[in-house]
Amino acid sequence: MNLDGLILYDIDDESDRNEAERPFPFVSTMDPADYLARHLTAWIIPTVVYRVVGKYPESRLRRWLSVQEPDRVLSVFVGSSSRDKEVATSLTRSQELRAEVGPDLLLGGVAIPERHTRGGDEHLRLLAKQAAGCSFFVTQIIYDVNAAKNLVSDYRFECTARGLAPAPIVFTFTVIGSLKTLDFLNWLGIDVPRWIQNELMHSENPLAASREQALAAAVDLIAYCRRLGGLFTTQLSIIAQAL
Amino acid sequence: MNLDGLILYDIDDESDRNEAERPFPFVSTMDPADYLARHLTAWIIPTVVYRVVGKYPESRLRRWLSVQEPDRVLSVFVGSSSRDKEVATSLTRSQELRAEVGPDLLLGGVAIPERHTRGGDEHLRLLAKQAAGCSFFVTQIIYDVNAAKNLVSDYRFECTARGLAPAPIVFTFTVIGSLKTLDFLNWLGIDVPRWIQNELMHSENPLAASREQALAAAVDLIAYCRRLGGLFTTQLSIIAQAL
Repeated sequence: MNLDGLILYDIDDESDRNEAERPFPFVSTMDPADYLARHLTAWIIPTVVYRVVGKYPESRLRRWLSVQEPDRVLSVFVGSSSRDKEVATSLTRSQELRAEVGPDLLLGGVAIPERHTRGGDEHLRLLAKQAAGCSFFVTQIIYDVNAAKNLVSDYRFECTARGLAPAPIVFTFTVIGSLKTLDFLNWLGIDVPRWIQNELMHSENPLAASREQALAAAVDLIAYCRRLGGLFTTQLSIIAQAL
Repeated sequence: MNLDGLILYDIDDESDRNEAERPFPFVSTMDPADYLARHLTAWIIPTVVYRVVGKYPESRLRRWLSVQEPDRVLSVFVGSSSRDKEVATSLTRSQELRAEVGPDLLLGGVAIPERHTRGGDEHLRLLAKQAAGCSFFVTQIIYDVNAAKNLVSDYRFECTARGLAPAPIVFTFTVIGSLKTLDFLNWLGIDVPRWIQNELMHSENPLAASREQALAAAVDLIAYCRRLGGLFTTQLSIIAQAL
């Protein structure tokens, strides 16, 4: 595979976000920063290291930020999965730390089309993150292309209205191998359109069907963004082994 | 233009359905059955004549049904636009009349993807209409392709579950020439996705933009229905002059 980049996610339980039972038990994973440092020493392709900042004390984040090589590492800070969760470091404080200790480290933010469907203001959140130092965005897993287009569209036109250059958005797609994973996507709050769910439920090979769907969605979104113009977009396919 | 068929709509006010002001004033139009009889005598292409059945007394519907040539004329019966509206003839009664007086006249029903988005049971309504004699469906104007796919998908799989052959669905698309028409679509209860609204609002040529959108939506839906298989679908572009 010819990769343009790699994203190392920082997995959090997030059970506080949803009262329903988590379809897969939560398994703690290695800190992605440690993983990169220990196991990918020969890796030269740009790597985006996620940081669920609430998990780490300020001192640890500060140390990490101070030793990153900005031509090799980028980061995405993820805030708390719910308002009541206790955090070691807040998202705002982490953004301040980065501005202070590692201003050259490219920082990205999370973009959630479903939040735009519910509240209609995700494009404003993106602009606020941009003002706090974010220079790119990574979306949550996309199954609802329409929702993604709505967000991109509102973001694009708001950028124009404010005279800002839109930041690149990395769209995330995934394939699913079983219906239990479909439950998990629902649990995570990802809108999977009914016709796609039907297709997966009636398919003899959900993995192949979802691969085809993800590909079609990606092609559709890329074509849309090109047509929209002025918005540089990258597309990334992720096959999460855990799924 | 090479036409496979023609649809003559029967326009109703429908102001009872929506408290907001109608963006365009309602103008009574000629009964489409009269229009066909008087002005399209040399017309040999199959014509679907809409009948807002509540507007006509039973005797008039009965007379009309008894003189139609089934190889030339098809009909779609449209029920009341709201539950409280007084009707001359009910939808159920009209269906009975047709079974009695004109059983060879092909009868179609209206399919509304937006109703499926809200209630999730439009596919069951289609099956009930099928049981009452409908052998094809015509959708409301489609701007939300996802909603249309959801309806088609649920309908298709429910047909399979019941061992029924799915009836052909005629998808309806339209172009709009001004933003006032966009208001009118909203007023009619048609979901126009936000990104499409944005595109039209920022376009110097909404007519050309919406033509492109309608074409893309049609291609997408046709490809989807082919892939779904077993569902014969027709696609129809309508340029309503009134819009």
